[in-house]
Amino acid sequence: MYGYPEPVARAIEHFMKLPGVGPKTAARLAFHVLEMSEADVKAFAKALIDLKTGLTECAVCCNITEASPCAICRDPRRDRRVICVVQEPRDVIAMERTREYHGLYHVLHGAISPMEGVGPQDIRIRELVTRVGENEIEEVILATNPNVEGEATAMYISRLLKPFQVKLTRIAHGLPVGGDLEYADEVTLAKALEGRRAL
Amino acid sequence: MYGYPEPVARAIEHFMKLPGVGPKTAARLAFHVLEMSEADVKAFAKALIDLKTGLTECAVCCNITEASPCAICRDPRRDRRVICVVQEPRDVIAMERTREYHGLYHVLHGAISPMEGVGPQDIRIRELVTRVGENEIEEVILATNPNVEGEATAMYISRLLKPFQVKLTRIAHGLPVGGDLEYADEVTLAKALEGRRAL
Repeated sequence: MYGYPEPVARAIEHFMKLPGVGPKTAARLAFHVLEMSEADVKAFAKALIDLKTGLTECAVCCNITEASPCAICRDPRRDRRVICVVQEPRDVIAMERTREYHGLYHVLHGAISPMEGVGPQDIRIRELVTRVGENEIEEVILATNPNVEGEATAMYISRLLKPFQVKLTRIAHGLPVGGDLEYADEVTLAKALEGRRAL
Repeated sequence: MYGYPEPVARAIEHFMKLPGVGPKTAARLAFHVLEMSEADVKAFAKALIDLKTGLTECAVCCNITEASPCAICRDPRRDRRVICVVQEPRDVIAMERTREYHGLYHVLHGAISPMEGVGPQDIRIRELVTRVGENEIEEVILATNPNVEGEATAMYISRLLKPFQVKLTRIAHGLPVGGDLEYADEVTLAKALEGRRAL
């Protein structure tokens, strides 16, 4: 039976490795690329290689950056006594979007997950402990995800940092702003109730 | 405000140009690429370039191919007296999947669509007319999509080919009207082929 020409089949295979892309979407994407200009395709391919090879990890906060230390760690206006610990580089972007946080970050690149074979040594916890030990840090905000892995990671780190006399905090759990109480799950609602504050 | 490092932002931009990919999906794809091995990313980038530069059009049927004439046009077992006219290269794959068709193809690379500014001269109609004129063709099956553009294209071609004393047929409306030939299942497509009628 006649199939796709080899270059088409290979491109489809590669697209199918991307998250959420099945065979039909992959074929659609491949044929889209086929209709792009050669210059655009080359720029796309180059962007992928640059993405992989043009980034390094910040020696201070472990965030991805073009040059170490990263723009945030270099910024003299940031409060160097506060570290916000997040799982992924995109969490830094999310935090920055609030415009409410002016300290530094520490990017773990994951969370402890025995189910997926990720132990404390597989993420940047050692780097965080060294960093807290060697600098004058007043507060470490644990902003890992509000799920099992994120909670376990926050607990693990808080135990490791206890000896350093640093204030350890965890971002609050509660209802998402703009959300509906009716649709909140029980655990979230219980946490929101537990974390209630005087008005 | 701190944003994505330049290589990440650029990769996101490129992913967003793909059909059905919004900013959140694009970011997810970019971070996925960041976590792929360097070898895999390079292979992906190469596959994109090969896709764009490694294909040409078959001089006979206009299908995309690595070498002209294409594998189908070169195959001595195919019935050279029948031509099935389709809009896109992926429609050839769909037809082949039925295992019911053993003739040759002609790929138009589009359909006449005044709305999108696609006229008869923008697709491979001239090549089809020349081909029918220069070869001993008994039947031309018009298998353009069962929607407005596809019907109009089939009508236009049938009028052009009338003088050639060739049997002109249109695949039956076993296909859902308004649908896409590419997504039809094999049985429906086989039925549509079987029920073709003289024009």
